[in-house]
Amino acid sequence: MTGDQRFDAEFREQFRNLLRWRRDVRRFKPEPLPSGLLEEILELSRFAPSVGLSEPWRYVRISNPEIRAEIRKNFERANAQALSGYSGERAVRYARLKLAGLDSAPVHLAVFADHETTKGSGLGCRTMPEMREYSIVAAITTLWLAARAYGVGMGWLSILDPEEVRVVLSVPSGWHLVAYLCLGFPEQDSLVPELEEAGWEKRRAEILLLER
Amino acid sequence: MTGDQRFDAEFREQFRNLLRWRRDVRRFKPEPLPSGLLEEILELSRFAPSVGLSEPWRYVRISNPEIRAEIRKNFERANAQALSGYSGERAVRYARLKLAGLDSAPVHLAVFADHETTKGSGLGCRTMPEMREYSIVAAITTLWLAARAYGVGMGWLSILDPEEVRVVLSVPSGWHLVAYLCLGFPEQDSLVPELEEAGWEKRRAEILLLER
Repeated sequence: MTGDQRFDAEFREQFRNLLRWRRDVRRFKPEPLPSGLLEEILELSRFAPSVGLSEPWRYVRISNPEIRAEIRKNFERANAQALSGYSGERAVRYARLKLAGLDSAPVHLAVFADHETTKGSGLGCRTMPEMREYSIVAAITTLWLAARAYGVGMGWLSILDPEEVRVVLSVPSGWHLVAYLCLGFPEQDSLVPELEEAGWEKRRAEILLLER
Repeated sequence: MTGDQRFDAEFREQFRNLLRWRRDVRRFKPEPLPSGLLEEILELSRFAPSVGLSEPWRYVRISNPEIRAEIRKNFERANAQALSGYSGERAVRYARLKLAGLDSAPVHLAVFADHETTKGSGLGCRTMPEMREYSIVAAITTLWLAARAYGVGMGWLSILDPEEVRVVLSVPSGWHLVAYLCLGFPEQDSLVPELEEAGWEKRRAEILLLER
């Protein structure tokens, strides 16, 4: 079925398993990652595609407890506001969800898109400047799978005021927050998304594909 | 180094190779994909993460030659405007680049983010509504790697007016174009990005990681 000799059916089966085991993890063991492991995983994310080869990804690792506390306050404010947007049973369910692994994750990473980079000379960004942010997401998706291949879990937190995160981390105003990531070894493993286990939403069985 | 028994060092090495062989392909063999292969690859992209499990990805396969011709005109206009933004040697280089595989790729896929979906009940999108588009990029990155595992090349075209594409394809106004993809078997294989071979830009050797 394929002309490519590099990747065989066994690899494809394992790759499918990697996709299936990737989870948005929010419950981490507090133990730190072994020395060098984060760097090894980040190194793999370098192979992600980027618009015009601009590689606009900028990573910030947050270890300072005071800065982590500021991020937590940011999340708590945004989460309280989000909760107030639900009512009835949805609100009860929302309040029960565990939406962040900020408390126990040994690694916190903020990932920004540098909209002022000159690398790539703007190729591919004129009509779609959002392509720079999309390049960051491609790198994060790659990082997520790479982490999982090493047994490391990752969670993506978007319940934050992104501009406040930028200010707290003292990074340039041309940097736009794309993701706040928590990484560490997961407390438990599951093939079922946590939001599905919690009864919030289910995965669809099919892809919507229109024909034109 | 890892507590995960599911993925061993050999798999990780092959996964690294998959990341390295993934290319933004613009030169395709015109032969069609074997029946069912696109669906098999799309099926793998279902495992991509999405905000609030909203799965806001919407795919449109374009086969109609008249619609393909409209897309080509859209690209040519956007590309001419982009060229006019460069001068001197950069303009010469830009004009020489092959930036689209529209002419020979057997499969054209437009991928949209449905900003009006109620799936996921808005979880994770209040402060960062762009998370829906980011979920599409996660699916596209997954699709890209899955395709490559089957020997299929993919190219991402962003030199287009996205709103015009939406209108030409007659899809709802709440759908936002994230990517126009070309897929097919690549004419040649290379570990070097095409923009690097063409002397446009080089890959960086390192990740930028700040500490806070």
